[in-house]
Amino acid sequence: MTAELPKVHQADPSDPAFGPRVTLTAPLVLQSGESLAPVTLAYQTYGTLNAAKSNAILVCHALTMDQFVCGVHPVTGKRGWGEDIVGPGKVIDTNRYFIVCANVLGGCMGSTGPKEINPTTGRAWGLRFPVITIRDMVLAQAKLLDHLGIEKLLCVIGGSMGAMQALEWAVRFPHRVYSVAPIAGSYRHSAQNIAFHEVGRQAIMADPDWAHGNYLEQGSVPKRGLAVARMAAHITYLSEKALHQKFGRRLQNRDALSYGFDADFQVESYLRHQGASFVDRFDANSYLYITRAMDYFDLAAENGGVLANAFKGSNVRYMLISFTSDWLFPTEESRAIVRALNAAAANVSFVEIESDKGHDAFLLDEPEFHKTLQGFLDGCAEMRGLPKRGPL
Amino acid sequence: MTAELPKVHQADPSDPAFGPRVTLTAPLVLQSGESLAPVTLAYQTYGTLNAAKSNAILVCHALTMDQFVCGVHPVTGKRGWGEDIVGPGKVIDTNRYFIVCANVLGGCMGSTGPKEINPTTGRAWGLRFPVITIRDMVLAQAKLLDHLGIEKLLCVIGGSMGAMQALEWAVRFPHRVYSVAPIAGSYRHSAQNIAFHEVGRQAIMADPDWAHGNYLEQGSVPKRGLAVARMAAHITYLSEKALHQKFGRRLQNRDALSYGFDADFQVESYLRHQGASFVDRFDANSYLYITRAMDYFDLAAENGGVLANAFKGSNVRYMLISFTSDWLFPTEESRAIVRALNAAAANVSFVEIESDKGHDAFLLDEPEFHKTLQGFLDGCAEMRGLPKRGPL
Repeated sequence: MTAELPKVHQADPSDPAFGPRVTLTAPLVLQSGESLAPVTLAYQTYGTLNAAKSNAILVCHALTMDQFVCGVHPVTGKRGWGEDIVGPGKVIDTNRYFIVCANVLGGCMGSTGPKEINPTTGRAWGLRFPVITIRDMVLAQAKLLDHLGIEKLLCVIGGSMGAMQALEWAVRFPHRVYSVAPIAGSYRHSAQNIAFHEVGRQAIMADPDWAHGNYLEQGSVPKRGLAVARMAAHITYLSEKALHQKFGRRLQNRDALSYGFDADFQVESYLRHQGASFVDRFDANSYLYITRAMDYFDLAAENGGVLANAFKGSNVRYMLISFTSDWLFPTEESRAIVRALNAAAANVSFVEIESDKGHDAFLLDEPEFHKTLQGFLDGCAEMRGLPKRGPL
Repeated sequence: MTAELPKVHQADPSDPAFGPRVTLTAPLVLQSGESLAPVTLAYQTYGTLNAAKSNAILVCHALTMDQFVCGVHPVTGKRGWGEDIVGPGKVIDTNRYFIVCANVLGGCMGSTGPKEINPTTGRAWGLRFPVITIRDMVLAQAKLLDHLGIEKLLCVIGGSMGAMQALEWAVRFPHRVYSVAPIAGSYRHSAQNIAFHEVGRQAIMADPDWAHGNYLEQGSVPKRGLAVARMAAHITYLSEKALHQKFGRRLQNRDALSYGFDADFQVESYLRHQGASFVDRFDANSYLYITRAMDYFDLAAENGGVLANAFKGSNVRYMLISFTSDWLFPTEESRAIVRALNAAAANVSFVEIESDKGHDAFLLDEPEFHKTLQGFLDGCAEMRGLPKRGPL
């Protein structure tokens, strides 16, 4: 039993490095029917809000990401997850747009979640935290935008779980979004994806250091379980071809098989590293809650099984993007959304990007993807009367 | 910490229900260079060996299967894994053929493996068992056939890891096999498959009850780790479509989401059951060793990177079969073998079967697959002068 705490727990979210936070005192009525108060959201902004407040873009992060889209991450010391796409002169141009990204409700980078202290009890929430949904995340984001004085967003952009949030925004607050760009996403989590999430949750819960969710109070960390969960998930983020090209059957720092259980193969070593580094930045209970939120997401079910009903009468402009080698959120998922949008006579564009990189393509340097998204954003900006993109 | 042992450890492999066993006293020289002695193989036979000893078929089982192809399994009480295909009048007709299936070396159903007692030390092998390979499994099977007085096999048939063994037979002992039928297999384990195996191994090793492999001596069982390993693996055995059709997002014994971490969805409940029932019949260390043997398999690497060299001058008849929805051993893997066999001017037939059932299709009732395999076997039997298939 180790008492060594991962860095994320040592970090103080009120540390200025964690950036601004807003605390909503009015209770948030959750989809489950429970009320949650107070709700704190930690967020980052990039660029400048114009006088008309018409250039705001909300970026929604994926399962294990956070609000640190750009710059140096205060916990990992690495560059932000969106550096390839967000920045001055980049696709999401911080010279033109005002970008907001908040750590999701249930997250572990400063927003209210299971690892935070419940002020009512003075104890960490742990499993006493209510189960939250994608809709709850979006409700909290809407309140953050109220706080920032932003009535209408130019666009909501997100990949993977971020795409679910973007869709939820369009459905829940069509009057508050001009456009949405759900990338590599779905309108509901598939049976296979629920299955993979369940494996991850069971791996965490199987770790005695998880202590039925009370590890923080107990001074333990379910490192082994969380690492296994991450390893399993990580495979699903890459394509078989990407794994083959990146690692194949190449050996790790050796010329011959060891005939043992060391990481003989590079792919094993890589996965172990992915698992080990993840536990230093992510909270195990947050992983349970956020995967659950994704599993619960189903825009069709809550519209009588007819997805098109979710989009009826919508004036929102939609840009769907998928990647050919993404088997976690395959193109068929985006196509089903496009069909429903067409049936609802919505304004929708859809591009499937040729890529070997699997689901993770939405985080990587994919020129066709970037060009597609930039074209859509530029069009939206023009329609909204923003000045044309200047020279870099 | 539980002291309750799973049934497989309580069962006595010398119990007559476990069927015949043969113990080879001459040391088996393993691919690693180590020697292993004595080696015991537990096996089953079905049908009758003819006077010419020309009707013998070796069936090679997959990762978590065993020698109990037909009949009631002595540990689980369930029907044998091959009941759909092996039996009187079935594809592998026990009225015509003499079928042999042995628990693989390293297995846990009576053959020498990590859970057995090392007679030299009087202790369970545990991690002191040498790492074995597909070739080692096949070498041991060849010695079993010597013991049974069978010089030449009509066919070696196997799916998944069984396909690896069938290929190894053709390459290692071309003079002892008339034909082989590798089904849903590969000539080498892919990076993605190694990755999934590594997740399973790490899940087992993360379980404190694994006790660095000494759980048998310690009186513990790494049930949680092994269950997680099985859950992750099980997803890879099914297609996304099969999971969707079988479970979709249907709820388990409830009308609404629980907003908790119970198995709300049928697919979660199913996976948990798969994990829980697996630990009652399988040994965790065996899982480590057998997955490792699959990872190490690479017929190209041991032939200078040129797979065709493995098959040069071969008189063996090959029948390759793959399934369209199998993403663990996709058709491309079989196709690569066919290309190499063609380059070696071998006698090869190949059929890709249309199926929604994923990798597990090779264990299921797939009429096209059965017809294909039966046609091949009947042809081989005729060439070998066996009497024609009679009426049922």
